[in-house]
Amino acid sequence: MRVATVLWDREPTLAAIIGDSALNLAACAATLNRPRKDYPASDMVDLTARGSGGVRVVQGLLREAARRLKSGMWRAKAGDRLLRPVDRIRFLAPIPRPRKNIFCMGRNYAEHAKERRAEVPTVPVFFTKSPTSVIGHEAPVTYHQFTQQLDYEVELAVVIGRRGVNIPRGMAYDYIFGYTILNDVTARDIQKRHVQWFKGKSLDSYCPMGPWIVHKSALPDPHNLQIRLRVNGEVRQTASTADMVFTILDLIEVLSAGMTLEAGDILATGTPAGVAAGFDPPKWLQVGDVVEAEIEGIGLLRNRIIAPLL
Amino acid sequence: MRVATVLWDREPTLAAIIGDSALNLAACAATLNRPRKDYPASDMVDLTARGSGGVRVVQGLLREAARRLKSGMWRAKAGDRLLRPVDRIRFLAPIPRPRKNIFCMGRNYAEHAKERRAEVPTVPVFFTKSPTSVIGHEAPVTYHQFTQQLDYEVELAVVIGRRGVNIPRGMAYDYIFGYTILNDVTARDIQKRHVQWFKGKSLDSYCPMGPWIVHKSALPDPHNLQIRLRVNGEVRQTASTADMVFTILDLIEVLSAGMTLEAGDILATGTPAGVAAGFDPPKWLQVGDVVEAEIEGIGLLRNRIIAPLL
Repeated sequence: MRVATVLWDREPTLAAIIGDSALNLAACAATLNRPRKDYPASDMVDLTARGSGGVRVVQGLLREAARRLKSGMWRAKAGDRLLRPVDRIRFLAPIPRPRKNIFCMGRNYAEHAKERRAEVPTVPVFFTKSPTSVIGHEAPVTYHQFTQQLDYEVELAVVIGRRGVNIPRGMAYDYIFGYTILNDVTARDIQKRHVQWFKGKSLDSYCPMGPWIVHKSALPDPHNLQIRLRVNGEVRQTASTADMVFTILDLIEVLSAGMTLEAGDILATGTPAGVAAGFDPPKWLQVGDVVEAEIEGIGLLRNRIIAPLL
Repeated sequence: MRVATVLWDREPTLAAIIGDSALNLAACAATLNRPRKDYPASDMVDLTARGSGGVRVVQGLLREAARRLKSGMWRAKAGDRLLRPVDRIRFLAPIPRPRKNIFCMGRNYAEHAKERRAEVPTVPVFFTKSPTSVIGHEAPVTYHQFTQQLDYEVELAVVIGRRGVNIPRGMAYDYIFGYTILNDVTARDIQKRHVQWFKGKSLDSYCPMGPWIVHKSALPDPHNLQIRLRVNGEVRQTASTADMVFTILDLIEVLSAGMTLEAGDILATGTPAGVAAGFDPPKWLQVGDVVEAEIEGIGLLRNRIIAPLL
């Protein structure tokens, strides 16, 4: 199950992906005359919070839509009320406005720690990105004039589906809703200048996410996925999520120690080697560059770098 | 003008402080038969976002209530529909659930930087605290079992009242809504262990705030205020907000460079010398301690340390 937040007749709308099409979930429930209790969630945070009941509703709608698509009863076309081709849709971030900062993990791949001349951490290093930095698939990343060192970081992001605190490793899986791709765009000079990493990682548009969330049921082993990033087609980062220093379950246990996690929270799990700063000379992003972050089993998140409006 | 979020018949309710009483703003507007457009905001974030119009509504209600209090027409009493004594009210944090993490500033008083054996910064050091850490006046701070080094930090917090990005110093005052007191409770061992400061500063209950917000019109010079913290009556921190390395206007300019600030955002401006970690031996907080953070012209924020529920 893949769920997305898309612009549908200018409104942010919860959709599910079916083949190469996006299904408007609320419109689908209405068309099928579903009883009110079997309506889908109002938005993605609501869906993550509804637990297995919310997921069953979406899966039921997807099954029915697949049947009608197969029989030719329904077809995906631009401007349709129910189904539109994915390549004609504008994606917002799956959670366009997170209810708190995004949790991020630093140096969670040993090779990346080395290229940053840092030690491989023995405890997770957490920092955050502001919700105002979030953008979706194909939205532009602004090359703010405050930096000369713009960098990329492809990351597997975990979306939390249940409120909890002091979650033991062995229970952590129950708190996961699903997975998406996150590009932890970073101004290295600002990151360094301000000592703490927050500011250099939170400028407007520095958190591309998406294009959708893959429900955990569709990605049984998140630690065996190819993870890659290309700039203008050139592969810069390529690794496996098997190489993480701390696993997702580790991270949830440590992060939730004494600190409540909530449905809709987002945890980026760190980036592998190959960031711009790691090359000699560094391969900083430039205006016009196209960055493609890709994770096996999830999809492709693409964003272009644009000049600031001055 | 002082505005607070209080529990009123179990509901979070926007109130204004008048003498020693809290005035229920919505109930007051209804009693006075105000036209709908002159009703107060629904909550504190809404009030900060309404700009001068929202403030005028509250000030109008306060004037009318003062007149009726003076004439004996109204009286504050426990259980009253309009006015209740402040010492019988339960305060929530002025913004009980911020819409993003709280922005914090590290090492913004030179003497504090020295006691932490750090250099006085030449650019502001920003980090964040999770919204789930926020509690109000007189709510308990949990002594989580993960720390042996619990510390306090009294800070002047600025509440933002208007959305903006790249705000120049000379315009920054227009983006301020008001001021409150914030105790940046910190687990020093966790802060250090995780390298980045976020985790050690974001445990549940580690962000007492309040008791109310003083509108900026009532505090014309926020850089000439005594700021103090006591533990069980013993003065630990005492300084003037004149001693900040970066002024509030500086901080807004630098923080908003490339990063959008929004109404309801909270910016803690750093703590003066005298934290527990600065003493030899350190004077860590213990279960049962009562911490009082006080800022001249704002008020007193009091919280007791309690043992965790295990």
